[in-house]
Amino acid sequence: MANITVQASVLHGVKDLRVEERPLPTPANGEVQVAVQATGLCGSDLHYFSHFRNGDILVREPLTLGHESAGVVTAIGPDVSTLAVGDRVALEVGQPCEACDLCLEGRYNICPSMKFRSSAKAFPHAQGTLQEKVNHPAKWCHKLPDNVSLELGAIVEALSVAMHAYDRAVLQGNATVLVLGAGAIGLLCSAVIRATGHKAIIADIQEDRVRFATDNGFAHAGVVVPPRRPASIEDKLSYAQEVAELVKAAQVEGKAAGQVKVTFECTGVETCMQTAIYSTRPGGKILIIGMGTPIQTLPISAAALREVDLVGVFRYANSYARAIELIAQRPPDLPPLEKLVTHRFSGLARIRDAFDMAAKVKDESGNLIIKVVVDMGAGPGDSR
Amino acid sequence: MANITVQASVLHGVKDLRVEERPLPTPANGEVQVAVQATGLCGSDLHYFSHFRNGDILVREPLTLGHESAGVVTAIGPDVSTLAVGDRVALEVGQPCEACDLCLEGRYNICPSMKFRSSAKAFPHAQGTLQEKVNHPAKWCHKLPDNVSLELGAIVEALSVAMHAYDRAVLQGNATVLVLGAGAIGLLCSAVIRATGHKAIIADIQEDRVRFATDNGFAHAGVVVPPRRPASIEDKLSYAQEVAELVKAAQVEGKAAGQVKVTFECTGVETCMQTAIYSTRPGGKILIIGMGTPIQTLPISAAALREVDLVGVFRYANSYARAIELIAQRPPDLPPLEKLVTHRFSGLARIRDAFDMAAKVKDESGNLIIKVVVDMGAGPGDSR
Amino acid sequence: MANITVQASVLHGVKDLRVEERPLPTPANGEVQVAVQATGLCGSDLHYFSHFRNGDILVREPLTLGHESAGVVTAIGPDVSTLAVGDRVALEVGQPCEACDLCLEGRYNICPSMKFRSSAKAFPHAQGTLQEKVNHPAKWCHKLPDNVSLELGAIVEALSVAMHAYDRAVLQGNATVLVLGAGAIGLLCSAVIRATGHKAIIADIQEDRVRFATDNGFAHAGVVVPPRRPASIEDKLSYAQEVAELVKAAQVEGKAAGQVKVTFECTGVETCMQTAIYSTRPGGKILIIGMGTPIQTLPISAAALREVDLVGVFRYANSYARAIELIAQRPPDLPPLEKLVTHRFSGLARIRDAFDMAAKVKDESGNLIIKVVVDMGAGPGDSR
Amino acid sequence: MANITVQASVLHGVKDLRVEERPLPTPANGEVQVAVQATGLCGSDLHYFSHFRNGDILVREPLTLGHESAGVVTAIGPDVSTLAVGDRVALEVGQPCEACDLCLEGRYNICPSMKFRSSAKAFPHAQGTLQEKVNHPAKWCHKLPDNVSLELGAIVEALSVAMHAYDRAVLQGNATVLVLGAGAIGLLCSAVIRATGHKAIIADIQEDRVRFATDNGFAHAGVVVPPRRPASIEDKLSYAQEVAELVKAAQVEGKAAGQVKVTFECTGVETCMQTAIYSTRPGGKILIIGMGTPIQTLPISAAALREVDLVGVFRYANSYARAIELIAQRPPDLPPLEKLVTHRFSGLARIRDAFDMAAKVKDESGNLIIKVVVDMGAGPGDSR
Repeated sequence: MANITVQASVLHGVKDLRVEERPLPTPANGEVQVAVQATGLCGSDLHYFSHFRNGDILVREPLTLGHESAGVVTAIGPDVSTLAVGDRVALEVGQPCEACDLCLEGRYNICPSMKFRSSAKAFPHAQGTLQEKVNHPAKWCHKLPDNVSLELGAIVEALSVAMHAYDRAVLQGNATVLVLGAGAIGLLCSAVIRATGHKAIIADIQEDRVRFATDNGFAHAGVVVPPRRPASIEDKLSYAQEVAELVKAAQVEGKAAGQVKVTFECTGVETCMQTAIYSTRPGGKILIIGMGTPIQTLPISAAALREVDLVGVFRYANSYARAIELIAQRPPDLPPLEKLVTHRFSGLARIRDAFDMAAKVKDESGNLIIKVVVDMGAGPGDSR
Repeated sequence: MANITVQASVLHGVKDLRVEERPLPTPANGEVQVAVQATGLCGSDLHYFSHFRNGDILVREPLTLGHESAGVVTAIGPDVSTLAVGDRVALEVGQPCEACDLCLEGRYNICPSMKFRSSAKAFPHAQGTLQEKVNHPAKWCHKLPDNVSLELGAIVEALSVAMHAYDRAVLQGNATVLVLGAGAIGLLCSAVIRATGHKAIIADIQEDRVRFATDNGFAHAGVVVPPRRPASIEDKLSYAQEVAELVKAAQVEGKAAGQVKVTFECTGVETCMQTAIYSTRPGGKILIIGMGTPIQTLPISAAALREVDLVGVFRYANSYARAIELIAQRPPDLPPLEKLVTHRFSGLARIRDAFDMAAKVKDESGNLIIKVVVDMGAGPGDSR
Repeated sequence: MANITVQASVLHGVKDLRVEERPLPTPANGEVQVAVQATGLCGSDLHYFSHFRNGDILVREPLTLGHESAGVVTAIGPDVSTLAVGDRVALEVGQPCEACDLCLEGRYNICPSMKFRSSAKAFPHAQGTLQEKVNHPAKWCHKLPDNVSLELGAIVEALSVAMHAYDRAVLQGNATVLVLGAGAIGLLCSAVIRATGHKAIIADIQEDRVRFATDNGFAHAGVVVPPRRPASIEDKLSYAQEVAELVKAAQVEGKAAGQVKVTFECTGVETCMQTAIYSTRPGGKILIIGMGTPIQTLPISAAALREVDLVGVFRYANSYARAIELIAQRPPDLPPLEKLVTHRFSGLARIRDAFDMAAKVKDESGNLIIKVVVDMGAGPGDSR
Repeated sequence: MANITVQASVLHGVKDLRVEERPLPTPANGEVQVAVQATGLCGSDLHYFSHFRNGDILVREPLTLGHESAGVVTAIGPDVSTLAVGDRVALEVGQPCEACDLCLEGRYNICPSMKFRSSAKAFPHAQGTLQEKVNHPAKWCHKLPDNVSLELGAIVEALSVAMHAYDRAVLQGNATVLVLGAGAIGLLCSAVIRATGHKAIIADIQEDRVRFATDNGFAHAGVVVPPRRPASIEDKLSYAQEVAELVKAAQVEGKAAGQVKVTFECTGVETCMQTAIYSTRPGGKILIIGMGTPIQTLPISAAALREVDLVGVFRYANSYARAIELIAQRPPDLPPLEKLVTHRFSGLARIRDAFDMAAKVKDESGNLIIKVVVDMGAGPGDSR
């Protein structure tokens, strides 16, 4: 086995995506080489693509995007016993330091030294998965059962976020849960809530997203949030209270009965966090999943005085394998996750088109865009 | 409204059940009067019936049995605003002291001063529900939605036990769970595990109980435990290890994949507790739900050295309403609970027959006996 | 025993405090009559006094203030077995409904129907304890051991807040904890943190409060926060980050070593919440204890992306008895709580002076004002 | 830097301890070389020494014992940035696999592939620390502050067990805790309980151990358990109930007031587990810390029906650093841990004597033997 060269999609500046060759050494100790086959595009990818930055994080060297990936093992490094060539795997692309307190306590997702593929936070940047092949530690490659496609394998990353949020929620049996935002993450959160026997109410500003959710069993009830852009804090709060009333009205006996015990906030929008606070019953929790406005003006007393806790959710820890099992298991309550992949593009050359599509709300035919997947499927036999 | 007289089934000694008249005052402050319509028989009822005691607890005065009941509100005491005549309710029959530390901390089920209907633990005994009408605090009467029958209302009590066990298990998403015992409680635990999106393996010594569970979707996988009665502790432990191997073999990828994280022990049998310890992965939990052999010889190091915790489950707290909502909601993953009621007897006069049936494993036609319900349905209009 | 008349301090409008006579019936079922002896003044009392409102809550009828009280039992109602005339008790003055989900789950402090003495939230208002005698349910009267003075008994209320905050923090052993605000609540929180073997860093804008804390063993380290009043959100956040650096610098090896795992925010000030977010390590918690600015602009992503959770703390539940035991036990690590009572006023007639004092930061001699106590000690024998 | 040869104490059979030379390579990537200076002897060491096995675990090759050690860094391998030559460190001697679910979840102490020095469980055995120098991963070497001696550094291992038990207990503030067994582990548990502001009652069959505990502030109250060796299970249980009554009597108001919420069982003796069950209040916990009789006959219903949970404690995870900080911090409530080292032996040649001493209850002068430490202090400058 020798070093090889692989094609990679590399971002050099705002919307400056190039397909380039990149050397790939033979896999090191504990690593496998994976031919990436399916990669979902995520909001952070899109941010980097559009702004060459993500919030405060500037890109400081050419960066390959992509971190929601599944592929096929094409080579095995020394000391790897858990995987074999030909195995289909989902990649958990973050590599924590494994030595700090947080890693040792099992919270490796918030390891300050995390190297996460496609993120420019660490330097040198950990390159993403929008390339033909990557070397990756075997321990962070999760084998896919036969009944889980590579495309669903690419969904696992986002499903792990939902699963981790669920874990942090620590719900008692049969709770009523509100999900704010019916994008990919919101729908996956709602899917996990349903699959775990709870009652899900989903809310979004786009009616067809809400309809998608309720029609396809992602939620028991839906709330279409009236679009409005209040400017003053007073207007925002009264808008949020109004939405909270709509949520309340959506709680139908026997379907989504009971007070909202937990809210999964998946939008990152300030008025949604405000709505979350007003909608959640005393003693409840709000999971902050959506990444959006970093600084928000919140009715914090309305939360604290009722002991409604605001719980952060950052990516995932220890949930990848369980996310895969959930897909494999296909319980009746699990809505059809494959419907979340609404658009597919084949090959590295089409990545630019994929990003353009992911940046829109609807495609030219008026169809919802939920998750765009880049199909890179040269196949496991492709020895190049 | 005046004091009335009601017919009651009263136990005077071993198998000495009599139908007697009993005065019933008008409901006191905060109480409602409920015409009991459906009552499930429980193992503890059967114990009292057969032995005039339950373990160490001796019956010290004539005792009406029954505590798994639903009925219809026939009168309202002062200061009751949450219920009206005609409401159908499930009765949560335990009345804790509401003043001790445990009550105030929300763990009222283990209140040392609990007065639990049909139990002889407190004296004077709190009389059970196998009578035409009872007065009961409105706060412990849970309204049944229209789509929940009174018979299912009688199942709520046992389902609350399962829900409480689930709460105490504090499961992460998509766990593999073992249930030991496929009687009514074991099946309901398994139902809750399924309805909450986990993978359930159920084990029982009776093949047709296991088949009932897997055929009706109460569990993903079943284990028929070979019947054996080992005498020595060595034989018991090796038997338990053997059963643990059968459990392991039943963990099928995609259906009940993964190690057993939590075991719900629903039999109270010593070898089952031993099996539970051997079957549960390190860091897991065993919920001790079954009441049986009070003193057991256990491989306690095999639990402690792997931090497998033994967690007690006694009745339920704060789970009644959620149990009712679960039935009302009927999620696709919830197996058909109505199938658990295998035998019905009508009227107080048939209670003796009901007890005789409940004492058997199968009826004369060879059908499984899971839950026997006494139908006392005089109806809400019956003013007697 | 007959109905009596007691003197009460009654607020009729802004700073309009009058001493009036009020009838007091004989204690009802389960109640005792308590001669109130010592009452601490709290920030909310002061708000009502100064504004005849507390935030959004308007006073709608004449209101007796006071809720931090201890006294002596002077009469016993029917069905009281736990207390006797002459017993010294601390009053837990909130009366929850005892029937809602939250009450039954043990979180009675956030019962929506709570009747809390001296608060105008419920109507008719639950009258406060600044009166000679009150009738109060025996179950909410906590007996004081002999070695706990009535004055310390008046401190128990605030200590219960700190104890409840500690309970909600769920700290692992030997954590480093930051307390923002060195007023009565902050100092008591710090006292509990010390007494529970953790490392406390306390911060305040007033140097002599910080010095009081460190000199008297309330904290291991102190941070004097430079006073500033930034106007823009940018200035606020950079101020908060600067204070966070001061906190970091205060973490001395062997005394307050390690990263701040939990912050107790006791000021209610926006920049303090911001500081809390910047000061707490990933995976940590912020307890929101201080009541202040109800709407705050916060760097919420800086919390959520590091899974720093914001945990509300409202009054207390199930912590009164443990607070008393802590005082009685006087462990070496418990700082001298009696020093918190810096000013005392005797008799209902002096209440106006007491409020005037409590409104200041320092007295005319330049001494710190931490807790002002009204001594109403007519004594238990005073039959009036 | 070259490979060196070190002197090691090696066990070849029952009580067959030999001092031998052993090659030591230069430290590998991430490793440091540590000159071991102080090593405490533990019950498991003694078992291996006396029986060449530990319970079911047979020694299969010559084994160096010792795992409670502190020493001085004498060399640094590549990629080590956290330690320098001359640093004084405590060794956390278990090396988990860092790849299994349990490791990733932060429960590395129960990793099934753990390699723990001086234990014969894994093969080849991980050699213990009773040798001049060892190479050890830097991440498992915890730097000692200046005010913590190497001898106290050797105590850290056992203190970490106590800290981990404390973490698993999840105590609310100011609990009453029972500790069964006043040996080194029991005393350290009691020390942690005291240092964390709880009330400790300690019980032991040896009066002078109890007196040691109460005289030196390790516990608030002590119970001398009458020595008895009941044979039948009935006698055992009634003995345990009797001891539970003694425990109850020891709960003195203001010192160890309140019901026992948690029991730390540190003996591994069957009647002590039984006592733990009878002594712990409903809703409490029993921490199973002592390793002893692997199969025990227990009144399991008396635990389960009161929801007293049996919680396993195996070694420690993530508690080493906090244990060191606790020693460094020396809070007033921390009893004098240095008094636990009752006997010292210098040099590898004296190890046999050290084991002989550790096997006794008292020395020839009648002094208690709590912890025997082997002083191997060649000193950091010893380049050999």
